[in-house]
Amino acid sequence: MIITVSRQFGSGGREVGKRLADELGLQYYDRELLAEIAKQTDLKEDYVSYVIEKGGYHSYMFSFAHSMPLVSSTPTVVTDVLVAQRNIIKEVAKKGNCVIVGRSADAIISEYNPFKIFVYADEKSKLARCRERAPKNENLTDKQMLKEFKQIDKARRNLHDLFSSTPWGDKDGYDLMLNTSNTNIKAIIPALAEYIKAYKKQ
Amino acid sequence: MIITVSRQFGSGGREVGKRLADELGLQYYDRELLAEIAKQTDLKEDYVSYVIEKGGYHSYMFSFAHSMPLVSSTPTVVTDVLVAQRNIIKEVAKKGNCVIVGRSADAIISEYNPFKIFVYADEKSKLARCRERAPKNENLTDKQMLKEFKQIDKARRNLHDLFSSTPWGDKDGYDLMLNTSNTNIKAIIPALAEYIKAYKKQ
Repeated sequence: MIITVSRQFGSGGREVGKRLADELGLQYYDRELLAEIAKQTDLKEDYVSYVIEKGGYHSYMFSFAHSMPLVSSTPTVVTDVLVAQRNIIKEVAKKGNCVIVGRSADAIISEYNPFKIFVYADEKSKLARCRERAPKNENLTDKQMLKEFKQIDKARRNLHDLFSSTPWGDKDGYDLMLNTSNTNIKAIIPALAEYIKAYKKQ
Repeated sequence: MIITVSRQFGSGGREVGKRLADELGLQYYDRELLAEIAKQTDLKEDYVSYVIEKGGYHSYMFSFAHSMPLVSSTPTVVTDVLVAQRNIIKEVAKKGNCVIVGRSADAIISEYNPFKIFVYADEKSKLARCRERAPKNENLTDKQMLKEFKQIDKARRNLHDLFSSTPWGDKDGYDLMLNTSNTNIKAIIPALAEYIKAYKKQ
């Protein structure tokens, strides 16, 4: 059983993934993979995060080309990071029984036929969730936060669409699309786990 | 508990709705509503179906204006049908405890805060489902059937978007999006019912 969780920033996708893994007794992978990529590429984890979480190659080329990178970098190094991520996610999938959040995993390991979830929410819920979790951003206005959400989601979309034949967030690429607006995620996890088990057993 | 099921043609949305209603002990409404609309408007059920299932006012005006309508009709009559549909769906929602399939119900009764499902599937699954259910169409090619699916979905979209602030099939307008490709719908219904109960109880 392999489950991938793609998600809009602030929608609680990470919580969905973590709780599902606990409920189903599966390994959980999210930022853990960054450390492994850093190790394999001999790069700093900060830089790996910069490449992968800030949009990877596409954004790097078009948005960050004239800004100051955290460490010296070239397109080749960026490609190395993406290749390492791909290899690590494939290794993880080979072992099976896991939940992978983000990292374009749905596209990268499609041959393992994972159960693919997309988690999304309305702006109000995403703002509330982020304010609760990151009080350090309390000085940002809603408008500023929403702008940041959009930028992060755009980066996720760019990176995902490098690997995928269906666009990020397009229903055709997922088995289940979960709207977490006004949702107590903890409360729906057991039923969600049952749904996935029933789907896989049929 | 009110559940609305919107669906792509051929995705099995009707089966999802019917089985969910049985599982949860809810009233089920789909084509039943056409008869009631016909009664209230004093029109033939065929004509009501023609207006509502072939795309309503929009399609009627732009696509059928120069074709032969089944009965004499004017835009006013079309509006009457849509108003009757709206009233009947609101009456049904007022009674509560029901599943309504199609008829733009998600938008029409949004103030009742229904649990809104959208059911979709890939082309292969939709073709297989339709060939199984309607052997009389066996002379149609896949291409012809897919063209018909698209026309029916376009009509649903037009009619839905008359009432809704989010487009038909757009994830933001639904609580759950269900991909039924390669899915044995019967097998996933109990877990789906559990999911909705957990969501409503939270």
